[in-house]
Amino acid sequence: MNNELRQLIRDADNAINREDFDAVMNFYSDDAVLVVRPGLLARGKKEIRSAFVNISEYFNHSLAVKQDEMAVIETGDTALVIARAKLSAALKSDPEFSMERISTYVFRKEQGRGWLCVIDNSYGAELIEYDKESER
Amino acid sequence: MNNELRQLIRDADNAINREDFDAVMNFYSDDAVLVVRPGLLARGKKEIRSAFVNISEYFNHSLAVKQDEMAVIETGDTALVIARAKLSAALKSDPEFSMERISTYVFRKEQGRGWLCVIDNSYGAELIEYDKESER
Repeated sequence: MNNELRQLIRDADNAINREDFDAVMNFYSDDAVLVVRPGLLARGKKEIRSAFVNISEYFNHSLAVKQDEMAVIETGDTALVIARAKLSAALKSDPEFSMERISTYVFRKEQGRGWLCVIDNSYGAELIEYDKESER
Repeated sequence: MNNELRQLIRDADNAINREDFDAVMNFYSDDAVLVVRPGLLARGKKEIRSAFVNISEYFNHSLAVKQDEMAVIETGDTALVIARAKLSAALKSDPEFSMERISTYVFRKEQGRGWLCVIDNSYGAELIEYDKESER
């Protein structure tokens, strides 16, 4: 198990929770892709940062993300991480909002920069359902 | 959506179904990792080929794999594919054995060789459950 990757994910969660988006950006490669929601991708740091600003506003600046359970498969400069993400927030409509998701991350090790997240899909397998609908 | 990756996965399924393990190996990078089952990885083509021979024997040479629904996220030379895999077989204990799994693949585009599968995790999120148990 790769403890470095686990720590990177925890650091990114902490940065999201304190809304330090510059720190969040250190998590991503320059060509990173974030699944904002099924069917909507943010490509590159500029779009990803702006997506996090919007997500933070959507959750009324109360979003708390935590990922404890993780499985890491690593080979060479590539790694796949599957994690159980727990989200909670105080929404106007639901002050005790909480949900669980299976996140899927792909990491690439870059020379001089270490492990960077290249693909961030916090929707896990839900993407297939969307794909099915969009093909109808 | 990347039709090349979808076609590669279909070709690999067909090669598995006709037990043409040399053709199956064309699907993988030299450093590929296959999750044989949670907690057991096959690393490199030699181990992966031998895992497929064992899987084929386990399923009494009747394994049929099919993956239609897929979601592909691609950036630069890296791609994540999430697919719904349908397995069926005629086992001695259960002649109508069938199951469904969510597979997760990581692909890397290599110069002169095209897209190759680097990580093949046909257990999807089940890995987390195992991780949880193994940490107890």
